[in-house]
Amino acid sequence: MSEERAAEIFRALIMRRESRRALAARPVECEKLRAMLEAARWAPSYGNMQPWRFVLVQEPAALDAMRPAFTPGNAWAKQAPVLVVGTANPQDAKIVAGKEYYLFDLGLAVQNLLLQAVACGLVAHPMGGWDEQTVKQALGVPDEVRVVVVIALGYPGRLEELDEETRRKEQQPRTRKALAEIAFADRWGRPWDAGA
Amino acid sequence: MSEERAAEIFRALIMRRESRRALAARPVECEKLRAMLEAARWAPSYGNMQPWRFVLVQEPAALDAMRPAFTPGNAWAKQAPVLVVGTANPQDAKIVAGKEYYLFDLGLAVQNLLLQAVACGLVAHPMGGWDEQTVKQALGVPDEVRVVVVIALGYPGRLEELDEETRRKEQQPRTRKALAEIAFADRWGRPWDAGA
Repeated sequence: MSEERAAEIFRALIMRRESRRALAARPVECEKLRAMLEAARWAPSYGNMQPWRFVLVQEPAALDAMRPAFTPGNAWAKQAPVLVVGTANPQDAKIVAGKEYYLFDLGLAVQNLLLQAVACGLVAHPMGGWDEQTVKQALGVPDEVRVVVVIALGYPGRLEELDEETRRKEQQPRTRKALAEIAFADRWGRPWDAGA
Repeated sequence: MSEERAAEIFRALIMRRESRRALAARPVECEKLRAMLEAARWAPSYGNMQPWRFVLVQEPAALDAMRPAFTPGNAWAKQAPVLVVGTANPQDAKIVAGKEYYLFDLGLAVQNLLLQAVACGLVAHPMGGWDEQTVKQALGVPDEVRVVVVIALGYPGRLEELDEETRRKEQQPRTRKALAEIAFADRWGRPWDAGA
């Protein structure tokens, strides 16, 4: 494959990744879950310390135990056939002058996992809005380990099955800051694409 | 493209991403840098707060000012034609019970950027081993902003041009923890692929 084609395919994957809320009940094949975990496993990390640990929640009893953790705004996530819980022990990663790299390293691994999900035809929605203590009790996560992200995972579902408020959110266009706000050339505050 | 093919192409990209040290002096085209920044820009973040800010260092004077920041083990990075400095202001992101999401969000964006670099035929090596104050002074980064990662970027270079110690490191195989150590099924400590 040409370099141009590879770059274009990846760009399309990035743009296809959306934190959608409409999920089908259809289960996710084990091989797709494995591909996602493998993608996470090969992420880089500070000093290759690999602090990430994932709990894949699929059994009905475990999913039931997770559901009280969600805020009302995340009620849609109760439909997800799989929840991927991203955790790390801060002591398993570098800490530099207050910067706790377990969070950064986990971010690197989670993005690999999300993109592999999209490449597999799945929706993977990293959520805020859950109670850490409830999640930890539901899954038996040790005290010293932090839960950083809960990802609702499944095949794309039907928009019509969402409640009105959630459907409205789902149909809003994605927004991001302009490139000039987030990228600087050689010096802080000098927009990178000033000449664009 | 079939779903199987898309999943396979992405998996190959993940496996091709390596933190290599041999970099060519050849400059990196503006369009490739733009593709990388665009990939970062479309990453998800907690509450879509997008705390990431990148400084792309390419001018000789700015590269010179950065070089004293590197530890001796990162001397190879002085060859890089571009340094991408990943930063964020912790106050621009969510903080939940001590978890500072600027680090997690920046990790998500940086992984997009690294993978787009690989898809463009480049080497992108996120480094530890630099002095934050020196980087901040070199680039005029405000006091309240944290520098989290410095990425050495360029085209693949010749192994023979590395010193012996660095060449030795470069030739070591990549290692990762086994899947059973990092992925659990429904409950902490129950290996996900126990049946594999």
